[in-house]
Order: sequence, then C-alpha cells, then structure tokens
Amino acid sequence: MISTHGMTRPADLSDVRTTNLAVVLRFVRTHAPCSRADIAASTGLNKATVSSLVTDLLERRLLRETGLTENRIGRPASMLTLQSRPYAAIGIEVAADHLVAIAVDLTGERLLTWRRAYPGLDGTPGRAEAAVAALAGRVVAKMAAQERRVLGLTVAAPGLVAPGGGVRFAPHLGRAELDLGAALERGLRHPEFEVVIDSAANLAALAEYRGGADADTPNLLALIGGVEIGVGIVAEGRALRGHRGFAGQAGHLQVDCTGPACRCGRQGCLEAVAGLPALVRRTLPDTEQDGPVVDFAPELDRIAALAGNGDAQVTKALTEIGTMLGRGVTMLAELLDPQVVVLGGSFATLAPWLLPAVEAELASRAPGDIGCRVTASTLHPDGAALGGAMLALDRLEAGKLPAPAA
Amino acid sequence: MISTHGMTRPADLSDVRTTNLAVVLRFVRTHAPCSRADIAASTGLNKATVSSLVTDLLERRLLRETGLTENRIGRPASMLTLQSRPYAAIGIEVAADHLVAIAVDLTGERLLTWRRAYPGLDGTPGRAEAAVAALAGRVVAKMAAQERRVLGLTVAAPGLVAPGGGVRFAPHLGRAELDLGAALERGLRHPEFEVVIDSAANLAALAEYRGGADADTPNLLALIGGVEIGVGIVAEGRALRGHRGFAGQAGHLQVDCTGPACRCGRQGCLEAVAGLPALVRRTLPDTEQDGPVVDFAPELDRIAALAGNGDAQVTKALTEIGTMLGRGVTMLAELLDPQVVVLGGSFATLAPWLLPAVEAELASRAPGDIGCRVTASTLHPDGAALGGAMLALDRLEAGKLPAPAA
Repeated sequence: MISTHGMTRPADLSDVRTTNLAVVLRFVRTHAPCSRADIAASTGLNKATVSSLVTDLLERRLLRETGLTENRIGRPASMLTLQSRPYAAIGIEVAADHLVAIAVDLTGERLLTWRRAYPGLDGTPGRAEAAVAALAGRVVAKMAAQERRVLGLTVAAPGLVAPGGGVRFAPHLGRAELDLGAALERGLRHPEFEVVIDSAANLAALAEYRGGADADTPNLLALIGGVEIGVGIVAEGRALRGHRGFAGQAGHLQVDCTGPACRCGRQGCLEAVAGLPALVRRTLPDTEQDGPVVDFAPELDRIAALAGNGDAQVTKALTEIGTMLGRGVTMLAELLDPQVVVLGGSFATLAPWLLPAVEAELASRAPGDIGCRVTASTLHPDGAALGGAMLALDRLEAGKLPAPAA
Repeated sequence: MISTHGMTRPADLSDVRTTNLAVVLRFVRTHAPCSRADIAASTGLNKATVSSLVTDLLERRLLRETGLTENRIGRPASMLTLQSRPYAAIGIEVAADHLVAIAVDLTGERLLTWRRAYPGLDGTPGRAEAAVAALAGRVVAKMAAQERRVLGLTVAAPGLVAPGGGVRFAPHLGRAELDLGAALERGLRHPEFEVVIDSAANLAALAEYRGGADADTPNLLALIGGVEIGVGIVAEGRALRGHRGFAGQAGHLQVDCTGPACRCGRQGCLEAVAGLPALVRRTLPDTEQDGPVVDFAPELDRIAALAGNGDAQVTKALTEIGTMLGRGVTMLAELLDPQVVVLGGSFATLAPWLLPAVEAELASRAPGDIGCRVTASTLHPDGAALGGAMLALDRLEAGKLPAPAA
C-alpha cells in the first residue's frame, strides 16, 4: 500500500522499453517455446512492439529461434526460446567447511557444480579470501574456455554481509572480518561482470523463489540451518534486506527457556538450540570429548545416518530440536505471514526427523494464526550457490541487459 | 534484488504519464511553493512535459497556483502548491475502548479530530459495527457540508484484518469476528470513495513514514502497544503485509523465560509481559481486585501519572517491562534491520519510563548487531487514525488520481 516515495523516478520511453524487454524475457523463460503471437496475446503488448522487442533480444543473443513450428491453422510461426549459449552466471557458496561453485546458463541449466574442501573458517582471513578467489578464477576460466560471457558472479557468505562486500563471520568462530569483495576484484583482475557478495540465506531464498519446489510464491521464507541461523525473506516478490543488508538474523529468537546459554548472553536462543554446534552437542553428546568440533559436515552425516537407522537417542533429540525450531518458525510466520517456509542447510539434511515436530508445533497455535506450510528445500545442498548464480539472471530480468553483440 | 516476476506488467505510455503525474504531485507536496521550472530541474522531466502534467493536475484540482512570484532574475514564475480544498481523506481508529476519527486535506493538514467513547469491544459485534459506521457517517457528512470530496476512508482495527475487511479481535476479549467492511459499505450507502480496513499497526507505520519525526525513512518499524502488540513494517519504502495481510503479529516473541503464562500457551511472550492487561497487572497489582479491567485508558493514565510522580513500584515495574520490550525490539531489529523503531500506543504513553530500559537492552548486544534507533511516536495518540487518513493520499501519489472536475 505504501508507495516508494523517495525512490520513484520519473519514467521515460527508455524505461518503458527496458520494462517491456524484461517482460518478454520472463515470458519466454516461463513459456518457451513460444511465438511472438503468444507473447503479444499474453502480455497485452501489441504485435509490432513484440516484434521489435524480440529483434532486440535476438541481437543481444538472449533469445533464439528454434525453427519449430506450432501445429496450427495459418502461417507457421517461428518459435522462440532462451539462448542457452553464450552466457553464464556463477554462484559460489562459502560454507563453514567447504566451498560450492555452480554455473548456470541463461535457462538456469547447470553448467558445472564443483565442491571443494575449504580450510577457510579454520585458517586466516587471507587464506579464506585467497581460496574463494582462486575457485572463482577457475570457474571463470572454465566459462571462458566454453566461450561463454559471464553475466555476474555472486558469493554466498555466512554471517552478515555489508553492502561493500565485507563479511562478518560468526564471532564464536573467532573470525575477523573478511573483505571478500576486494579479494575477488583483485583475484579476478577487475572483471567486466558484476561481483556481488550476499548472505547465504538471502541467496537461498532467491533460489527457492526462482527455481525451488515453491517457485514464484510471492511471500516465502528460506530458513537456513548452519553454525548461525539465517532467514531469507521474500515479501511480495521482493527480497527484504534491511537498511544495512543485515536482515535475516534469526538465531536469537528465544525458543527454549530451559535451553542452553547462548553466546549472545541470553538463554535458549534458536541458535543455541538448533545451530550446528548445539545440534551436534545434543544429538552426539560424546563428540566433543576430543575437543571442539570445527568440521561439521561429517558430524551432520553421522547424525543423519544414526537417525536413519532409528537410533532412539538421536531421533528423540531431533524431535525436541524440531519442536523448538517450530517455535522459531511460528514467530517468523506470525511476524511475516509467508505462504511457505522452506528449510535449508542442516535443517534440510535433517528434515525427515525435524519436520514432523515443526509441523506439530505450528498446528498447536490458535486456528488461523499461522497460514503457511513448512517444507524441506529440494535444492539442498546447493541452494545458496544456485541462488548466487541466479542473482545475475534475476538482474537481467529486472532490466540489466547485456549490450548487443558487436 | 529479487524483481517482481509475477507482478510486473508491460508498461505503456499511460503508465508513464501516471507515474510522472505522481512524481510531480509528490514533488510539490514536499517542496511547495515551487515553480514548473523547479519541478523540471529536480525531476529531470523536460519543461514541456512538466507544463502538461501540471495543467492536468490543476484541472483535477489537486494543485493550485498561489500567484506568488519568486524573487529572482528573469520572468516571474507562477508558484504551485497542493490544493487544500476540495478533497478530504478520512481515518478512523477502532481502539479497545474508544474511537478516533481524523480527516485531513490534500496537504495532510487536519480538518477534524474527534474522539468518542466506545462501548464496542465490551458489547456485541453488531453494536461495534454500528458505532463505527455511525461515526464514519458523521465525518463524511461533515466533509460534504464543507463541499469536500472524500478521496477515501480507512478504518484502523486492532487484531487481524482479512483482505475483505473482516476483523478478528483479540481472542482473550472473547470477541467474534467483526465484518467492518460490509457494515461500512451499508452504513455509508455504497459510497463512491474506497473504504479500506487495515490493522492499526500497518496504518501507524504509514503515518510515521509519511508524517512522523522519521518521515521518509525507508526501513522503519512502528511497534504498537495495546491489548495485543502489533508491528507495522515498512521495508524499502513499502509496507510488508504478508500473504493474508496478517503480518506484524509481534505479541508472541518470547522475551521473558520467567514471565507470566501467555494465553497462547507459552510463557513470557511479549504480549504476556508488555500487553496492556499484563502491564496494568504488573504496575498496579491492586487493580484487578474489583474484577478484570476492560477499560484501559484510565488505568494507563494512572500509571503514567504515578510514574511521573516518581512512584518507586511503578517505575521499577516499567523498567523491567522496558527491558523485556527491548528484547523484543532486538529480535525485530535483527530480523528486519530497520533504521528506526517507533514506539506507539501504550508504549508511547509510557515511553519516558520504558525507553531508557529498551535502549540499554539494545546497547547490550554485540557491536554492529543492531543498527537502529528507538524513539517514541510524535504522532501519538493519533498515529493509526492519521495513517488511515493518509492511506488515501498515499494511493493518490501512487497514481490513483481522481477524475478531472466536470
């Protein structure tokens, strides 16, 4: 209802054209193969305008004609689809103990998925920055070898991401700030394409919104379990990022009054109950006998394996954690009234055991209070990296088109 | 970052004109008196376009020429300002024990402020609906007598407001649903103008965004104390309403593990600690000896008076409640990263005693976690009703212009 006072600029003819180019691009993405007449019929744009817009998009090599002909009465129509070549978009997730790199073409089709062990969060900031930049460089080189032009590269970082690309990692991991943005600019030698750093939760939400099982749901939350707990918020089809880009810190919703002390000084915060360290400690009480856990992936696999085998202690602990997670979900749902909450990260790994308890907790609220479903991400474990790759596609469809090929 | 996929329509020339009419209207609102040349210089629109847009807005009687001349070199310029006549916008707040009606002109200037005692929440739904409709009818008649055309009427309701105008009041007040929308349509005999029902918190947030001390702050929360506790969320200049319009339920953020049981079944929810009934019970423990309180306004005044006189028990209780309110504000700030949280309703009444504790609690968080200020609303106690009146002005500036005068 509130309009965008401070931000509405006067519109002119180039805005109209940009908007309409994006409308056509989106229509083709979701309806390909389709004809110019299909586009005109569905968008309300007139045929001459559609024809001109399509010509422009063909020249920019964003669309191509498939040569197929619709089986119908009248003159055969030339069918359009997105160009799978010559573009690529790249996303890299910096997780607590590994890196994931994904590249996609314009249609969202995967071109590569690379996973790398990552000493980063246990090493120095310089090593972490270098590892990310090196991986980014290799992916960019691979795309160049395929003669693809990179539309953009986005790094999904845990913790808080400042607008300039600085990342504040989890303080309890004892980490200084990383300057990933500057490291990537240097490492990639000031690339032509845009390099963006964003939070893993924001990008996971984008991936769900563009390509998850609940794609195009305008009010959607992606609640991502990890060392910290973040929530990516999509409201009316727009990402909610907050004024510093720090929105989505869900770790300190208080869920369990009898729960463990949190590093923040309070008790029973969602992170202190369902964050990775707490989760490992509660399900595998013997684990920390050899010192604090820094590599969570194998522990998470072990928990899932034990739960899968029906281990009573582990499944009981996961049910208890699921109930508390359900309380967090309830608070988020009451505040933001989404249609769906998608669980990602460690919550997705453990969803078979967490989800029933989450749903039971939601069902215990007053009728009508909660109007959302809760599901496990079908994109797991690639949500954040995929979201990173999709960000460039999203910007394209918001009107940031590449220049026509020379 | 996420574009509005499902919702972006193709743009055409009439969209451009509507957008630009709204741009001119907003510019004049914030810069009046100003000349056509000022508008052209600041908006980037060319002079001929501005001239045509201004003529249109003059014909619709939204602008007027003041006849004043800028003191400058060259030909004297005709200065423009908003028409204070012939339009009016109306807002009515349905509070727990009273009604507030406010009408404003196009410039936001108050035309009337009426307060009425209200048996509503203690009576039957039919009586409540009738009381609201009767007050609305009297305000509309008053505007008609002044020969003002009503642009819109908005009712600010407590509780949850469904898109159709149905209102679910606080369940612990034992109230059935009200159908305010239908009652107003009947009572006002199917008026030409738009009748909207919205939550008090959403409208209070709009009032702050348009006319509060922190007007035009794009990321702003209005946290409103009352029997229930609601938060109006403005993110990047847009209201976040959720998919059913039920966003903003902040009452069940858990803030005090040792706090009282909440009607929701949990313990120490913000509402159970800082909602009006809990607040009265904690600061004035003797009050309920004569039965449950249903009329909160006098109790709130008594609490403020006692605190103002330095009553030790009351100020101590308010400090404790302020600390817990601070925890709720912390959670909201971490989730939504606003620039400012404006306290309204009973929180504004008691701000002198609550705010220091709220601020101390925020300051206790890790450096950088919280990036917002907390203030008491300067619009109190009229925020929600004023926001209701402003909604019609807001829609006008979003392009819903009245037809030119016949």
